[in-house]
Parts: sequence; C-alpha cells; structure tokens
Amino acid sequence: MGPDRLRQLLEAVKAGDLNIADAVGELSRLHVIETPGARVDTHRALRQGIPEVVFGEGKTAEQIVDVIGALQAAGQDVLVTRVSLELAAAVLEKAPEGVHEVEARLLWYGPDTPPRQGRGTIAVVSAGSADRPITFEAARVAHYFGNEVDVIEDVGVAGLHRILAVQDRLRAARVLIVVAGMEGALPAVVGGLVDKPVIAVPTSVGYGAAWSGLTALFGMLTSCASNVTVVNIDNGFGAAHVATLINRLA
Amino acid sequence: MGPDRLRQLLEAVKAGDLNIADAVGELSRLHVIETPGARVDTHRALRQGIPEVVFGEGKTAEQIVDVIGALQAAGQDVLVTRVSLELAAAVLEKAPEGVHEVEARLLWYGPDTPPRQGRGTIAVVSAGSADRPITFEAARVAHYFGNEVDVIEDVGVAGLHRILAVQDRLRAARVLIVVAGMEGALPAVVGGLVDKPVIAVPTSVGYGAAWSGLTALFGMLTSCASNVTVVNIDNGFGAAHVATLINRLA
Amino acid sequence: MGPDRLRQLLEAVKAGDLNIADAVGELSRLHVIETPGARVDTHRALRQGIPEVVFGEGKTAEQIVDVIGALQAAGQDVLVTRVSLELAAAVLEKAPEGVHEVEARLLWYGPDTPPRQGRGTIAVVSAGSADRPITFEAARVAHYFGNEVDVIEDVGVAGLHRILAVQDRLRAARVLIVVAGMEGALPAVVGGLVDKPVIAVPTSVGYGAAWSGLTALFGMLTSCASNVTVVNIDNGFGAAHVATLINRLA
Amino acid sequence: MGPDRLRQLLEAVKAGDLNIADAVGELSRLHVIETPGARVDTHRALRQGIPEVVFGEGKTAEQIVDVIGALQAAGQDVLVTRVSLELAAAVLEKAPEGVHEVEARLLWYGPDTPPRQGRGTIAVVSAGSADRPITFEAARVAHYFGNEVDVIEDVGVAGLHRILAVQDRLRAARVLIVVAGMEGALPAVVGGLVDKPVIAVPTSVGYGAAWSGLTALFGMLTSCASNVTVVNIDNGFGAAHVATLINRLA
Amino acid sequence: MGPDRLRQLLEAVKAGDLNIADAVGELSRLHVIETPGARVDTHRALRQGIPEVVFGEGKTAEQIVDVIGALQAAGQDVLVTRVSLELAAAVLEKAPEGVHEVEARLLWYGPDTPPRQGRGTIAVVSAGSADRPITFEAARVAHYFGNEVDVIEDVGVAGLHRILAVQDRLRAARVLIVVAGMEGALPAVVGGLVDKPVIAVPTSVGYGAAWSGLTALFGMLTSCASNVTVVNIDNGFGAAHVATLINRLA
Amino acid sequence: MGPDRLRQLLEAVKAGDLNIADAVGELSRLHVIETPGARVDTHRALRQGIPEVVFGEGKTAEQIVDVIGALQAAGQDVLVTRVSLELAAAVLEKAPEGVHEVEARLLWYGPDTPPRQGRGTIAVVSAGSADRPITFEAARVAHYFGNEVDVIEDVGVAGLHRILAVQDRLRAARVLIVVAGMEGALPAVVGGLVDKPVIAVPTSVGYGAAWSGLTALFGMLTSCASNVTVVNIDNGFGAAHVATLINRLA
Amino acid sequence: MGPDRLRQLLEAVKAGDLNIADAVGELSRLHVIETPGARVDTHRALRQGIPEVVFGEGKTAEQIVDVIGALQAAGQDVLVTRVSLELAAAVLEKAPEGVHEVEARLLWYGPDTPPRQGRGTIAVVSAGSADRPITFEAARVAHYFGNEVDVIEDVGVAGLHRILAVQDRLRAARVLIVVAGMEGALPAVVGGLVDKPVIAVPTSVGYGAAWSGLTALFGMLTSCASNVTVVNIDNGFGAAHVATLINRLA
Amino acid sequence: MGPDRLRQLLEAVKAGDLNIADAVGELSRLHVIETPGARVDTHRALRQGIPEVVFGEGKTAEQIVDVIGALQAAGQDVLVTRVSLELAAAVLEKAPEGVHEVEARLLWYGPDTPPRQGRGTIAVVSAGSADRPITFEAARVAHYFGNEVDVIEDVGVAGLHRILAVQDRLRAARVLIVVAGMEGALPAVVGGLVDKPVIAVPTSVGYGAAWSGLTALFGMLTSCASNVTVVNIDNGFGAAHVATLINRLA
Repeated sequence: MGPDRLRQLLEAVKAGDLNIADAVGELSRLHVIETPGARVDTHRALRQGIPEVVFGEGKTAEQIVDVIGALQAAGQDVLVTRVSLELAAAVLEKAPEGVHEVEARLLWYGPDTPPRQGRGTIAVVSAGSADRPITFEAARVAHYFGNEVDVIEDVGVAGLHRILAVQDRLRAARVLIVVAGMEGALPAVVGGLVDKPVIAVPTSVGYGAAWSGLTALFGMLTSCASNVTVVNIDNGFGAAHVATLINRLA
Repeated sequence: MGPDRLRQLLEAVKAGDLNIADAVGELSRLHVIETPGARVDTHRALRQGIPEVVFGEGKTAEQIVDVIGALQAAGQDVLVTRVSLELAAAVLEKAPEGVHEVEARLLWYGPDTPPRQGRGTIAVVSAGSADRPITFEAARVAHYFGNEVDVIEDVGVAGLHRILAVQDRLRAARVLIVVAGMEGALPAVVGGLVDKPVIAVPTSVGYGAAWSGLTALFGMLTSCASNVTVVNIDNGFGAAHVATLINRLA
Repeated sequence: MGPDRLRQLLEAVKAGDLNIADAVGELSRLHVIETPGARVDTHRALRQGIPEVVFGEGKTAEQIVDVIGALQAAGQDVLVTRVSLELAAAVLEKAPEGVHEVEARLLWYGPDTPPRQGRGTIAVVSAGSADRPITFEAARVAHYFGNEVDVIEDVGVAGLHRILAVQDRLRAARVLIVVAGMEGALPAVVGGLVDKPVIAVPTSVGYGAAWSGLTALFGMLTSCASNVTVVNIDNGFGAAHVATLINRLA
Repeated sequence: MGPDRLRQLLEAVKAGDLNIADAVGELSRLHVIETPGARVDTHRALRQGIPEVVFGEGKTAEQIVDVIGALQAAGQDVLVTRVSLELAAAVLEKAPEGVHEVEARLLWYGPDTPPRQGRGTIAVVSAGSADRPITFEAARVAHYFGNEVDVIEDVGVAGLHRILAVQDRLRAARVLIVVAGMEGALPAVVGGLVDKPVIAVPTSVGYGAAWSGLTALFGMLTSCASNVTVVNIDNGFGAAHVATLINRLA
Repeated sequence: MGPDRLRQLLEAVKAGDLNIADAVGELSRLHVIETPGARVDTHRALRQGIPEVVFGEGKTAEQIVDVIGALQAAGQDVLVTRVSLELAAAVLEKAPEGVHEVEARLLWYGPDTPPRQGRGTIAVVSAGSADRPITFEAARVAHYFGNEVDVIEDVGVAGLHRILAVQDRLRAARVLIVVAGMEGALPAVVGGLVDKPVIAVPTSVGYGAAWSGLTALFGMLTSCASNVTVVNIDNGFGAAHVATLINRLA
Repeated sequence: MGPDRLRQLLEAVKAGDLNIADAVGELSRLHVIETPGARVDTHRALRQGIPEVVFGEGKTAEQIVDVIGALQAAGQDVLVTRVSLELAAAVLEKAPEGVHEVEARLLWYGPDTPPRQGRGTIAVVSAGSADRPITFEAARVAHYFGNEVDVIEDVGVAGLHRILAVQDRLRAARVLIVVAGMEGALPAVVGGLVDKPVIAVPTSVGYGAAWSGLTALFGMLTSCASNVTVVNIDNGFGAAHVATLINRLA
Repeated sequence: MGPDRLRQLLEAVKAGDLNIADAVGELSRLHVIETPGARVDTHRALRQGIPEVVFGEGKTAEQIVDVIGALQAAGQDVLVTRVSLELAAAVLEKAPEGVHEVEARLLWYGPDTPPRQGRGTIAVVSAGSADRPITFEAARVAHYFGNEVDVIEDVGVAGLHRILAVQDRLRAARVLIVVAGMEGALPAVVGGLVDKPVIAVPTSVGYGAAWSGLTALFGMLTSCASNVTVVNIDNGFGAAHVATLINRLA
Repeated sequence: MGPDRLRQLLEAVKAGDLNIADAVGELSRLHVIETPGARVDTHRALRQGIPEVVFGEGKTAEQIVDVIGALQAAGQDVLVTRVSLELAAAVLEKAPEGVHEVEARLLWYGPDTPPRQGRGTIAVVSAGSADRPITFEAARVAHYFGNEVDVIEDVGVAGLHRILAVQDRLRAARVLIVVAGMEGALPAVVGGLVDKPVIAVPTSVGYGAAWSGLTALFGMLTSCASNVTVVNIDNGFGAAHVATLINRLA
C-alpha cells in the first residue's frame, strides 16, 4: 500500500465516509502481506523508506521464496538475513535474481547500490577476523540501506598500532559500528578516539569465559567511554539499522 | 589549554622546534588537571565542546570542590553527577554558586541554559515515576549539554492509552531516550512508533526477578524493535551524552 | 477405574470390609496403568475430567503406542505432546487412528471436537510467528480439553496498531494465554487492556541476550500489569491446562 | 471520574461534538490524579471495580498522604502496600482513619469488610511461618478486594501429615494461592491434591542456595503439577489480584 | 598389591631396610596400574574393599578393554559407568564376559550378586520415569557394591498417594537415595517421612527453568528437611558410593 | 505429647473408638505447640529422639522465649540456632538457665553433656579460622545431639603438612563434617584420605569470585572424591543432623 | 623457628633420634604461632623469605595486636591487609610502631624500605582513580616485599594518549600488574605493548552491568593478549605476591 | 620484516626522510602478512622471539595452508593450535612437512627441538587423564617455545600420596602450569608446596555443577594459595606463553 492509498483512506476518515474502527482495521490489514508460511508487516518500510527485511533463520526456503515474491509484487526491495549456505542455494534456485553475500549471510533482491540517502560515512570496525560474519552483516546491510560504508577489520586492542594507523578513517565517519567478541574492549578504545556516536556489537566469538558473547556484552555496557551504546549479541543488522537512522538525520 | 595553545604546539612540532616525544608528553600533561584527590582529563571537553563531567559517587566533598575550582579557573563549566543530598550540601557550602538538581542528583556550575547546539529535540520518556532519578539525570544532562528536551513521564506499557496520547511528541523528537525498569518493555513500544534512534536506559527499579536491572537490560537488548540501542543500567548520563552527539550531527 | 468402582471401594472401607492399608494400596494400584516402558497415572484424569496426557519427548514410539493402547482400552482419550515429525510418523504407523497436529507437535486420539465444558472463550495471543509451535500447542490443547479458542497471532509490541486492532477480541475472552519470546513484553501490554486473568508463556525464541527464554521469563514475572501469572518456558500445555481449569469454574 | 462522566464524554464523541484526539486526551487526563509527588492512574480501578492500590516502598509519607487525600476526595477506597512500621506511623498521623495491617504491611482506607464480589473462597496456603508477611499480604489484599479467604499456614512438605490434615479445606477453595520459599515445593504438592488453579508465590525466605527466592521461583516454574502458575518473588499482592479476577468470573 | 605385600613393605621401613622416600615411591607406583590409554589407581579399592570403577564417558573401547584386562589380571572386579550403547557393544566384543546393564549404562565384570557387606537395605527412590537412567545407575552400583537394594520409582510429589503407599518401604531402609529432576522436591518429602540419612541426586530432567538440573540441585540444598545431603547433578554413582559406606558402618 | 499418649490414641483407633479423620486431626494438633509468635512441630523430636531445634534468625526474643517455655513445659531440651549476641542477651534475660555458645551462635537449654547415643566419633574439620562460626555450629550441635566430637581446625589445602599431621584423627572418625569456603577443596582432600562418609559444608567465607559460597558449593559437588555429599552454604546445623543420624545407625 | 632449629631437627630424624611421626608433629607445631584469636602459619615466610601477612578483614583489633606481638617476638616483620580506618586506629593504639598506609588499607611493622631482593621493577598500572585502593595495595605490598615499584595511574583505554605517553615505563618493567574495573580492557592493551608477564587484577569498580567485578574478571580472562594471567577480584595482595616471586627469579 | 629493515626505517624517520604518518603506516603494513583468508600479525613474533601462532579452530584447511606458506616464506616457524584430526589431515596433505601432535591438537612447522631459551624447567601438572588435551597443549607449546618441560599427570587432590611422591619435581621447576577441571583444587595444593609462580588452567572437564569449567575457574581464583594466577578455561596455550615469558627473564 503506497502513500497515495494511505492519504485517500485518511481523507475518507476525515470526511466521515469511513469510521475509525474500520479505518484501523483496514490500515492494519493493508500493510501486512500474508503468505502461507509467514506474515510480513510492511508498515516499517512504508514509514522509514528502507527495504523490507526477513529474518531467515528458522524459516524454510519455501516460506522465504513466498515472501520475496509477495514483496517484489508490491514493488519493494527485499533483504533476507541469517541465511545459511544451504538455505541460500535453495532460495536462489527458485528466486535466482538475488545476490548472495556469503560472508554476511544475506540475500538481497534490489539494486546493487541503492541511492545514497545517508549524509556521511558509517565506519564498521572489527576486532578480529573471527568477527567477520557479523562485521559484514552490519556493513552490507548499511550499504543496501543507502549508506557510504568504510570497513576496517582486525584492529583489536592488543595491537594498538593497528588502531592508531586508522585514526583518520575513524574520525572521518559520521557514526561508527564497532564489532568485537571476547572481552569486547574495542568500542571503549574507539569511543575515546572520536566524538561521534559509537554502536557496539558484541559477538559470540571466544571460548570459555567469553560465555557466548555475554562477557563482551557486559564489557561494552560498562565501557569507560560514554559515547557508546550497545545492541544484542551478534546483532549486526540492528546496528546497521540504527546507524542508518542516525546517518539520515538532516 | 585552549585551542590556541594547541595550534601553537602543533606548529612547533611541524617546524621541528619540538620533538615528537616531548610533544606527546606535553599534550598529555596539558589536558590533565591534577588536584590532590583527583585527576581530570580535559581532553574530551576540548574535543567535543561539552562541559567537563565529574562522577561524584565515591568522591569526598573536598575532592569535588578542588576539581570545580581547577576547572573554573580554566574557564570551563562543570557538571557533577550522582551527588547525594549530603554531598551536595557539603560541596555547595564551599562552592556556593552551583545549581543543585535534587531529583537528577546533579550539581551544575555554568549558565542556566547553555546555548543551543543540538538541531532538534531530545525526548526523554519514562515508564514510571520510580524511574524519575534516572529520567531526570538524562533530561537535565541533555539540557546542560545544549539540547532542547521534552520530558514525558509515566507512560508504562500496561496503560497503552498513555503512550498513544503522546505519539505526536514522540514523533517530533530527533532522538529519544527511553527509561524503564522491571521488564523494560517501553523502548520496544516506543521504537515501533517512531523512525528515529531510540536509546534505552534500563533502571534498577523493581524487585525479585527484576534482578537490579538485569531483566530490563536483557529485555531491551532483545527488543523486537530494531531501532533501539542500550546503555548500562541506571546510566542516564551516558544516554544523554550519546543523544547529544546524535543531535549535533549536521 | 471408573467412579463406580471407586465408590464401591470406599464403602467397603467404611463397612470395615477393607482395612485402610489395603484400600490405600489398591487405590494407588488401580489408577496406574503399567506398560512395559511407562507408567500412566490416571488419577488426574479421573478427578478432573480431562483426557490423559503423555509427554512424548524422550519416549520411543513403542512406549507411546503401548500407552495409547492401554488408555484406549480403558476408554480414555489420549493426548501426546512434544512429538517430532519422525516420532509422530512412527506412532501413527501402529496407531493410525490419531490426528497429528504438525505445528502444535501433538498427537490426539479422541473426538475432533470434544464437548464444550468451558463457559467462555480462551484467547491465545502470540507476539510473533516464531512462537507458533508453542502458540498452537496451547491453542490445540485448550481445544481438545473442551474450550472455545480464539487464536490471535503476530501482535508484537513493536507494532501497536496490530494489538489495538484486536482489542475487542482480547476483551471478549474469559481467560487469556499470551505467548512471547525475546523481551516478553506482550503480556504486560495485553494485561493492561483487559480485566481478566492473563497466563504468560515465555518462549525460547530469540538469540543472544534472550538466553533461551530466560529474559522473556523474567520480563513477564516483573510485568507492570498485575493480572499476569507465568508458566515455564515453552510450556504451552501447562498454560492451556490452567486456562481450562479457570474456564470451567462455574 | 465516574462511569456517568465517561458515558457523557463518549456520547459527545459519537455526536461529533468532541473529536477523537481531544477525547483521547481528556480521557487520559481524567483518570489520572496528579499530586505533587506522584501520579495515580485510576483507569484500572474504574474498569475493574477494585480499590486503588499504591505501592508504598520508596515513597515518602507526604506523597502517600497526598494520594490518599486525592483518591478519597474522588470517593475511592485506597490500599497502600509494602508499608514499613515507620512509614505507617507517619502516614497514620496525618491520615488517621486508616487500618494498619502490621504483618501484611498494608494500610487500608475503606470499609472493614468490603461487599463480597467473589463467588467462592480463596485459600492462601504457606509453607512456613517465615513466609508470613507475604502470606498475609496476599490474604488481606484478597479480603479487601471482596473475597472470602481461608488462610492455612505452616504446611511445608517436610511434614506431610500437616498437608493431609487440611485436604478438605484445600479442595473447598475456588482458587488457591500457595506461598513458599527455599525449595518452593509446596505448590506442586498442593497442585496434585486439587483440580483448581493454583497461583504460586515464591518468597525470598531461606539462605545460601535459596538465592533470595530464585530457587523457589525456578522450582515452582518446573513444578510437576501442571495446574500451577507463578508470580514474581514476594509478590503477594499480584497473586491476590489474579485470584480476585478468577474468583469473580461468573 | 594385596595387604600382605603392603605389610611387608611397611615393616621394611620400620626396620630401616627401606628409606622413606623409596617407600613412598614404591607405594605410589604399586597401586597404580598403567595402561597405554589410562592409569587406574587401585588405592581406593584396596582401602575400601569395593570394586574398581572406571568412568567410561570420553574413553575409547580400547582404553576400557585395556583397563579391564589389567584389573582382572590383578584379580579385581571392574565396574564401568556412563557407557553408551555403542561403547558397550564395542567393549563387549573384546571383553565378552561382562554384564551390560542397559538402563543403568553400566558394564560389570564380576559376580552377579557380590557378597552382602551392608547391614541394611538401601532404598533408591525416584520422582519420575524420566529419571530412570540415574535411578538405575544408583541402584545397580549399590547392588554390585554388596548392598540389598529396594527400588521405588515414580513417586513424584504431585501425586502424594503414591508416596504414602510406600511409606513402610521408605521407613525400612537404613539409608535412602532420592532421585529427582525439575523442582527436586521429592527428597524434602521423603526426608520428612524417615529418620534416616537421605542422599539427594538432582537430575538434568526437565526443560526451560529446570536449567539442566540446576533448579533441582538448589531446591534439594535448600530442602526444608534437614536430614538431606546432596551430590552432583546426575551423579547416581556417587550417591551409591556414599550410601554403601554408610550401610557398611558397624 | 509423649509416646504413652500416642499409643493410647492409636489403640483407640484400632478399637474403633476414634475414627481416622479425628485421629489424624488430633495427631497433627498434638505435636504442634502453638505460641503467639511461632508454631513448633514436635513431631521430628518425637520420632528421632533429638532435642527440639528453633531457627533463631528473624525471630524476636519474645517469640523465642515463648517457644522455650512451651517446650520446657513439655519436658523437652531446646536448641536455638543462629542467635546474634544481642538476641542471645535478650533471651537469656528472661530465660537465664540456658548456655550461650558465642562462637557457634547457639543457645542451649538442656544437660551440658547429653547421654552419648552415637556409636563413634564425628570429626568436624575446617579449612580456616574464618570458617569458625560454621565449624562450631556443626560441632556443638553434634555434641548436644549426643555424639563424641573431634574438632580439627585450620587445615586448609595450601598447607598439606597440616592435614597430613592429623591423618590419624581423620581416619578414627565414623563420619566426617568438612567445612570450607573459597574454593572448597578440603572435602576432596579429606575424602581421599578416609573411607567413611564425608559431609561437606560450603561457607560464605571469601570475597570476589567466592560469590558468597557458590564457588565452594559447586567445587564440593564436583569433588573428585566420590564419598562426599554436600549441604547448603553455611548449614553447619544440617551437617550435624545428618552426621548424627549416620552415627546412630546400629 | 629459624633455619638452624630446622636443620637440627632434620638431623635428629636422620640419626634416628626422632621418629617420623614425632618430627612431622613438631614441625607442624613449630611453624604455627597460636594466639587466643588466631593461628599464624609461619611456614610460608620461612620458605619464601617474605614478611608474614595477616588478612585484617573480619578480625578484631585484639586478635591482630596479639598476632603482631607474637610475630615480632619471633623476629618477623608483619603486614596486615584490608584494614579499615577504625581498625587501624584501634590497632595502632596498642601497637603504635606500625606504619598505616591509608589508601592501601595496610598496616606495616618493619623497615620503611626493606632490602631489595627483586631483580627488576614491578610496574603497577591502573585504569582509573577509583581503582586506587587496589592499585596501592598491590604497589605497597610489592614495596614491602622488597621490590622496586613504578606506579602508573589513570591510563584507562578510553584515552589512548595517556597509555602511549607511558610506553617506555611499561616496557622498562620486568613484570606488570594491571588494575582495572568496569570492562577490564586495560590488561589487553598493556599486554599488547610489552613482552613481559602481565598480572591482571579486576576490581569491583563500576555499577550496573559491572556486576561487582565479574565483567572485568571475565574480560581479562578472555583478553586477546595471551601474556595476561588473572587473580581474584580486588586481590591486589595476590598480584603483588606473584609479581614478587617472578621478580626474584634468578 | 627483520630487525635490520626496522632499524633502517626508524633512522629514516630520525633523518626526516620519512614523516611520522608514513612510518606508522609502513610499520603497520609490514608486519602484517595478508593471505586470502586470514591476516597474520608478525609484530609479536618480531618483538618476542617466539614462533608465529595460528588459532586453528574455525579456520579452513586452505586458510591455514596459506598462512603457513606465507610465514615460512618469511622464514618463520609456525604453530597451529586447536586442530582437529580432520583438519590436521587436510592441512598435512598440502603442507606435509609439519608435525602433528595428536593429543595436544597442534601442528608444528619448525625444528623438532628449538634452541633452549628458558633458564629453568616448566612443570606442567594435571589433575586427571581427562585433562590431557589441555595438559599436552601447554606442555608442547612450552617445548616449541624453547623451554625444558616436565609433565606430571594424574595427581588429583583426592589421592594426596600421588602429589607427595612428586614434590621434588614440583620444587625443581622455575614456573609451574597446573591443569585441572571439576573443582579445580590442584593449583591451591601445588601452590602451597612451592614458592614459585603457579599458572592455573581450568578445564571444561566434569559434568553437572562443573558448568563447563566455570567452577574450576572460580575455585582457582579463590584459591587459598596466593602464588596462583589463572588463565581462561582450556587455555593451555596462554599458560604456556606466560610461562615462557617468565622462564626467559634473565
């Protein structure tokens, strides 16, 4: 349901041609696309001007193909996150026009480089190469949401020379996403080097006392740099979403 | 050390009149104000154009008065956070020109309303009146950091009519801080109503399975709205700092 | 052992024809059906007028088939919960007259629609489609226990319009089951909209800080709506059982 | 705001004399009583026909006296929970017509025995005398909410003869509240003896591995009796509220 | 090394024919049987008169066969615990004279019924049939350690009539092992019915808030019956060992 | 109620002079002594021949004095545990014939050395002097319950020579209680030196990662010596109770 | 007992003038100094050539004064750790020759600067001024144990320029102690700058998700620098002890 | 990049032929070897004179082979840790000159016995044979890092005679690594027997309350021997690295 239909409906309410209860009902129906295996709420996309996103984990290829079809029929770009190699292959067989970002575990149906809507660059910084799946999820989602992205990998705090060597790139960003597992110290260090908002993404990388990301999560929350906020463990997508909203602020 | 002295120093480096090691040493000395009981690093303030902040908890009145004196001598505004009633009284006795924000537990030495530097309004939203100390900490810090602030209290999710009644104010904000204890559900609900970044502050309000804020913290991190990031439990100051940085983005 | 035999036995006790120890022994023997792989206590069914329930997880097809046979021989309906696709297939091969509810992971041996014993409707409400197995477990168990059931899916709190659109259905229920994972906020919101008992079911849906349902569980226990009680994580069956007892209250 | 004013307002909406936005605003204003130190939402009371409840912990005597005054002016009964001896004395000095239930830590302003609205008896059962504050909170709240209440104390599972001796009273109740700390085993035992809904209240009674109620909480959630639901640790009030709603079901 | 050789060695020490260091060395060598894949310390067996025990989990069939051979060569009976079906088959192929207790997951090389050394009966009591592997591990280990054993299964606390029916058997035991998962309430109930030592074994049975046995463990430790001690989760062997030591006390 | 009255009552049942329900009621009434502030169940004492025990923590001096009076009137010895200095002083003022064991935090009303009923010695072993309150609670309770007790303090595992020096005393005991905080390693070491049952008592001694006894508790449960069972943190009384039961086994 | 007496005793053993059991007994008696309130094991001091250490927390002034007296009589220096202001004053009143290190919470009876036994310098590095008590405990203990110490405070990772400015001092140390609370990131950063052993001390500094030092502890254990080992939370003494042992290695 | 090139570069900086920024850039580039699947930072090896280490877990055989090739081309020895049997086979197929240490899960490309650089012996001590993979990881890494190593297995605290028999070997070491799972008591015992630094490695060995190494970890941190520091669970490599640094101290 495009903005036109929406305006039409609201005017009917104002004119008394449509009562409140019916309008609420129609509105809530209209921005939901029902497929046999899943319901997609297009409300957010409508309001925020971003592509529709499907969380792939736990869904079957059939369910995802259905959703892609329905959304494309509605003229929307589609991003599927958390897609395994097997799932991606199965989906692409039936909906072959998508791009499969292997490291980022994404499927994308839309233009290779969507029009830039952000005002600056989003830096996506990672502590180690084991954080790559989450780093790339964040970076590619930010890309497809219309942002300029600068990826800076492997600058963990045990080798300060690596961070110092990229200070200029860090300072050039309008908003930063910092991805780290284990002790999760990188956001504090990066936060101390810039005066921009830093979104920290703890990852489940590490063993033993890393407790599947819990240690990194708590470490980031208690970071001694106060320009850091945190998202859920391994939630590269959420970080990219918030960074996009910040980057679009006029 | 003002920007002028800084420029002077850097030119001496360039001209070879000052070697690198000495410059680093001087720089690190210069932006630290040493007092008998505490060291204040003015680096951040210099870089970010915000007042100097002193974490009051665990410090004595003497230590705080010393820092205030040193910073005011350097021409800087000072904000002291987490100040108890007794501590505030003791500090004000010796440094009486400050403003004591009782509910926010702050002491402020500077202009009542600093010049506006933010581009929009920061909404500070709370779930219940028990969250007031943190709500006010966030709101008043944001105010003294030069932002327009809209405080919306007591709109917990068990009374949806209260949230619905303030939708317009929520949507008018450029960035939102949402403060909640217990199950921490409010950020998810607010996040679903706006397309702006939402900074969630879990509070230690609640008993039993609220586990001193842990439940609210985890609830906010797993929020089903993906435009939400989270700061540490009861960290109203940190939320205000990040919101300020976002609100200043040009 | 039907009520008649029970009455007979108790009269023998009163008449002194049966001493206490023997009566206790016989009673405890009589309502237990022993099969080679499992013992089924029919006491609850006898007392509460509900079908016999077998927890399928961890049992072999042979054990389940034996129990079904023994119970059917005793004239009782049988419900098997937590049945995987493979287990269901293996059981149905030998006991083919059952109904397999795939999404609810149930096997049912009894009438398609048992006689209504509840006085009102049980609403089963879910936050998201990933909660479906638990939602359907609750809904179908409630159905087979003789209740009118209204299933309302996918009304998570990040899209308030969806909840508001179903307010009337929520208010029409005599008792509500609310199923949610991640931050578990939905029961608080629903609890605020109705003045009926709400039974919250946390699910293990979510990743990272969702901690396999722990966050939803704690969130529901600290819900700011005080008409909410909670059952174990993923325990759709238990919620349906309690809702049935409430719905039968005359 | 009584039901009359409410009806009047809604008819104005229907007649077009009042637009939706204004009506929402007025409604949300009207059922909130603002006092200097607290806001009381009378919405719930209006809808559910129960007295207004104020959570006393963390409030000052002045705040509570203000609320009591405002609510009594509006013709409502008031219940204040979690009141310490000192707080109760301070409140009663200024608002002396209240009843102080010392063991239940309640203040009550209303008729000694409100009109019975429940259809049966609520049994409040406790494991030990150390659970008394929570037991009495549940029992007295249920009493003031208009229920017949039967209190059965000190029937912990390590002395089965005590439980067996009260079986008839347990079975006579329409709904049961079971209060226990330490291992929290009593609800499972009681749940096995009755076919009515059992609301379990874990208490923070116990030391060491009782973990301030966490062990009782988890024990009750994993209870082998499936007619048990659970509320937050020490939440006697919440249990009484839900039991009241169940007991009023026609 | 039998007691004779031991006595001989100690006399040599006393006579000065063997210095202390050498004696310590020889002693520590003598009671260790080295095999390529494992070392078995026969010290305990020597001192306590019980068969040698091998923890099977994580060992290969070859390692276990080696140990069995070495121990049998030394004239000792051997008990292997935590043996999977596959592992048992592989071991029995090469060491076929053993008995495989499938439900108890044990392999036994020794007389079917070792001579009775205990003075009374050990009751092994379980809450549910899902606890069977641990129940049988405890029961069969106790049997092979020379005790009279009475197994009483499926007497969970939600069906008190089942426990009451076996009170005499409980009271007839000299020491009791009580096995339970989920809320772990059974030891408290049994402990209240007897005046003998009760050894509680928490099991990992249960889902959600059962937390793999943690809830049962904590529940048993905070049991309101003070004649209960606890062993590790699923440690049926340890319970049987302690019960054996108690049962042998003259 | 002494054994005589009990026998009388049971014969009335047998003779039909007393029906079952009444007998159950009278029995459950008779062995409960009701005082204004507490109920004491004398059932255990009756059955087990041990003094009556009152948990002092959380009770007022008045409540305790009442209980002491009632029990002494019934001819029973009384032991009050967990008594602070202040509470002991207040109780002794009104019931001065008691003995106050300061370090063990006990009050005892009975003979200084009750008749020996145990068959051997109970060794009470501690890791450090900080464990003294729990060590003495265990030792003195065991003494008043009629056992020979050998207290061996300060033999922590970091000084093996201390343990080795007392090996003979350890081996002379019929049952051992081992008290330790911090890492809780002592029971494993002692368990390896004896072939008797070892009851481990974790204490809340230690800071940081000692987590108020949790680390010691888990350490004892996973002890590599399999003749160790565990009671709740700081539960010296429980350990003494079980040790008494074991020591009395004929 | 000095080394001379020790040699004498051992020769008596060799000569057969003293049997083993007696020698063990005497040895274990000799190096223990018994005072009314505490036992001090001088074994460690004897072996390691370091002063005797008394953990002050939880002891009374009398107990500590007794120990000091006994140890000084034996010619040993004494260090008392974790001494509050009140306790220090009470001890000094009776044993006035000691030095009270207020910030380090130590009492020292011995030479102001003990002879240097370490071969290099121990750097004690801290993240913030709130870590001062632990930083100074480590630094002063290291000093009194005979080490050259370099204290470097307030170099938290959010201000990298501060760490970089002290690189030379870090690299000059033979072993480093790094003290940090909150996210505990400093040891990883320091560990990456040096090729010497780093001992990390987590502190309980921080609020909310700092969980009293647990987050710093886990962060340090999962540090991405592999030359870091960790001691207990707030254990400045332990870190100084290990650093001393390392620094003395020839 | 060898030390020569490094010196050359630094002299260019001093001479002004190379500006700071470029030098930093070149330095950070030079010691990083980029391969298609991984980046290896040779900085540490350069500075510390130890072989390059690759963490094998989670990497493909191709990635590892690439890194080995690049490092060998640069003239460096390579150690790959955490290599499964399958991974090792796949790597060895393409890079066959390596040594596969099966029990230690290592691949080594370098001389069989690197030149000794340590000054003493590193003892690697384990509690049980289940700790072998970690024990051998520590021992073999220490060997390849140029240390004399003494491996002492299976001396768990429940059999003290085993530890006592190896006292001399323990005391002969310059630094000790102690590996233990379950309750993690061995480091405390060993720490009490030596006056050298002890590095404790908790392992994930054990079940139930061993909580995958958490119990051993906490036990070691609260060890009553104060010469113990701790590394992450199962981190044999880290322990060997720190022990190497200590052993090289001149």
